Amino acid sequence: MLNPKTRRLLRSGLAALAITAATGTIVAVAAPALDLAGLHAANRLDGDQTKEVRQSVIGGKARNVILLIGDGMGDSEITIARNYAKGAAGRFAGIDALPLTGQYTTYSLNKTTGKPDYDPDSAATGTAWATGFKTYDGAISVDVQGTAQQSLLEMAKAKGLRTGNVTTAELQDATPAVLVSHVLARSCYGPSATLKTCPEAALENGGLGSITEQLINTRPDVSLGGGATTFNEVATAGAYQGKTLKQQAYERGYQIVSDKAGLDKVKKANQDKPLLGLFAAGNMAVRWVGPEATADGGKKDPARCTENPDRLATQPTLADMTSKAIDLLDAKRNGPGFFLQVEGASIDKQDHAANACGQIGETVDLDEAVKVALDFAAKDGNTSVFVTADHAHTSQIVDAGSVTPGITVNLLTADDAPMTINYATALKGSSMQHTGSQLRIAGYGPGAANIVGLTDQTDLNTTIRRILGLDRKRG
Amino acid sequence: MLNPKTRRLLRSGLAALAITAATGTIVAVAAPALDLAGLHAANRLDGDQTKEVRQSVIGGKARNVILLIGDGMGDSEITIARNYAKGAAGRFAGIDALPLTGQYTTYSLNKTTGKPDYDPDSAATGTAWATGFKTYDGAISVDVQGTAQQSLLEMAKAKGLRTGNVTTAELQDATPAVLVSHVLARSCYGPSATLKTCPEAALENGGLGSITEQLINTRPDVSLGGGATTFNEVATAGAYQGKTLKQQAYERGYQIVSDKAGLDKVKKANQDKPLLGLFAAGNMAVRWVGPEATADGGKKDPARCTENPDRLATQPTLADMTSKAIDLLDAKRNGPGFFLQVEGASIDKQDHAANACGQIGETVDLDEAVKVALDFAAKDGNTSVFVTADHAHTSQIVDAGSVTPGITVNLLTADDAPMTINYATALKGSSMQHTGSQLRIAGYGPGAANIVGLTDQTDLNTTIRRILGLDRKRG
Repeated sequence: MLNPKTRRLLRSGLAALAITAATGTIVAVAAPALDLAGLHAANRLDGDQTKEVRQSVIGGKARNVILLIGDGMGDSEITIARNYAKGAAGRFAGIDALPLTGQYTTYSLNKTTGKPDYDPDSAATGTAWATGFKTYDGAISVDVQGTAQQSLLEMAKAKGLRTGNVTTAELQDATPAVLVSHVLARSCYGPSATLKTCPEAALENGGLGSITEQLINTRPDVSLGGGATTFNEVATAGAYQGKTLKQQAYERGYQIVSDKAGLDKVKKANQDKPLLGLFAAGNMAVRWVGPEATADGGKKDPARCTENPDRLATQPTLADMTSKAIDLLDAKRNGPGFFLQVEGASIDKQDHAANACGQIGETVDLDEAVKVALDFAAKDGNTSVFVTADHAHTSQIVDAGSVTPGITVNLLTADDAPMTINYATALKGSSMQHTGSQLRIAGYGPGAANIVGLTDQTDLNTTIRRILGLDRKRG
Repeated sequence: MLNPKTRRLLRSGLAALAITAATGTIVAVAAPALDLAGLHAANRLDGDQTKEVRQSVIGGKARNVILLIGDGMGDSEITIARNYAKGAAGRFAGIDALPLTGQYTTYSLNKTTGKPDYDPDSAATGTAWATGFKTYDGAISVDVQGTAQQSLLEMAKAKGLRTGNVTTAELQDATPAVLVSHVLARSCYGPSATLKTCPEAALENGGLGSITEQLINTRPDVSLGGGATTFNEVATAGAYQGKTLKQQAYERGYQIVSDKAGLDKVKKANQDKPLLGLFAAGNMAVRWVGPEATADGGKKDPARCTENPDRLATQPTLADMTSKAIDLLDAKRNGPGFFLQVEGASIDKQDHAANACGQIGETVDLDEAVKVALDFAAKDGNTSVFVTADHAHTSQIVDAGSVTPGITVNLLTADDAPMTINYATALKGSSMQHTGSQLRIAGYGPGAANIVGLTDQTDLNTTIRRILGLDRKRG
């Protein structure tokens, strides 16, 4: 019998190979059958890991922090993706590899009552980790009174650190937006929406501008994601009135790229020439597609996910973007450190849409990015990495072949076994809801022990500030 | 502003007081309103906890291990109970107090194919942690081929340790059963079911007997729970043929008690006079009841849980049973150590029944037992404690006031805020399903670092064996 470590490496390696080498469009074909029925055949540990865990508990500061957020990636979403892509006994090379783990609470606040809202959105939860303030759903780095509060990225910049903000969503979407802007409503992407929905933020009214205009002002060294459409909007006030936001970015020194080839060519990104990657009009295309969840989906023959035929090969993956962002931000041992946020955004969006394969493919996409971050951190020796989600979501593993009051889908996993997934938080035709469960948070590097046990999302703000030595400007 | 620690103690103390001092039958009345909107007002940590985490990572062996299982207590169930009973920013004094945390996988195996079954039951998952073997749903400490495999309790006993098995369910239910018996089907409680469903186990056929008969043979020092009805069955073969199983237990030296007063009077329990507490005919009564989940339940006015009027005050709580079991098993520094399993069984059963208040009350009941275990362990200094679940379950927190394709219920929490819970894994009239998510596992004491990161349920078997120095007889 192979020992657990060898088995794990074998499985992880072969499953990964299967994904990249798929000849048709099927992804995550079966790993070789493993006998899981023997004594401790399913164990994940090779022996006593006390020493390894102790060695992972490192105090003090780090030069760099990389925070990776799987939007809507609750424990259920992680398990679904692992079962499908690696098998039940498999292991994600990134997500599952962080040595320290805990749970955190994610509730937001009701804007009117100030009391807990037990089922938060990405804007409120993003504001919590980005600023340390609990706020109401929809708020972008403003507290429950609507006061702007400094984000981790802004604090890092103020201290002279390099900064990056990477997402598979629009760069104006809640998670990336909380790092670079402050508005009362998450929909205020560009000048037109802002005039209508967030008039206090409009430049016309002496405000900070739309999320996109604030992004340009905040000027991270690296911003990569979707959201090109809003950059085509024209500024309705201010110094760049009458020009598109893209034109404004050009005139203010940004390098703008729109595909992987363009991204590959960039050799430098800094405050003189910040990098803006706009790889899609809206959200970036998802990696995988698959069978639709339906009322009787659980009873159908189990099917495999396939690569998304609508996704252009010219679009970088999240791992591509993460790798490039790290290359550009890393000043090596002599320069300043960096703060980089990386979001796998469409785990959430595909869970909303009850697209199991979409959701799984995006989790695999995030896992690849986590692997890139961990490999860098291990080599660098002075980088802390955190992986978590912002809120839990709908999808649940139920008995294979069963149906529920909601909609279900039956997938054939890497184990060559059926897995039925249930989506049942929204009435027919509506978007599935977030859910309010506490979430897994995992960490690596100096200060990472502060995610062990039960913490709150706002603790992550304190933890990252402590690691990077960031001071907070009073709001 | 109060510091987080003071706030936390205040909240936890007051909320607990409110529960015990409830004058009517309402439980978990509102804790004093806390302002959660300020900077880091929701933080759970007081400062850098690196040192505390490092100090929690203790290698080596312990004299005693207490394993507490919340049946069906996924992260969602924990969060629901905490929100209701302690408030969103509150903290369970037991469940949330363990210093080390991780996630583990719980899948079982399909009996026919040997491939993973992604949505396991308590029998298979219990067999996994009790024996180290993955097996099929329904199996009680037999592997996927049906071969009996030694349990932790049996190994502990073989080594001369004292042993205890405590549950709020019937003592023949899957979780307690996996420690004391080996049958092919979990329903084989007594001789009659065994002859019919597990003929190979019947004494008539040279088998080990029903679960109850095997329990009597295995002879833990302490067995406490429900399940008296099966003890009234008559043995149909063997040395005690024609006598009830209860009579058999008496004749074989057991002390039998049936209420808290009887339990309180017991001063000693050992192999000469093992203790058998049978506090209910079937499962023990749940602590709390409340509004029914219905198709439009989320839209109804939020309601509070109340104490279960049908629960007799003469019935011990899980904390009562845990406390007594520890008292009886603890040989102090000079004698042998002990292995004690404590199950909060009806979190699962109430989740199956979509009874939110039932499920929450049972989680609170388990939390009290965890507190007892941790207090003992802290004082003793040579005890490891583990708290986890066997599988995830149905209940989800959705937007307050929303309805879903399933059934929902709206509760008024300790924050005086509405929390809506969704049950939607089973068609109308059917029992809600388990779900397949990875689960929280938490640990305290020597060896507990082996639950950090991602492990499997079978690793817990190895971890406890290592801590207690248990050898496994080949199956």
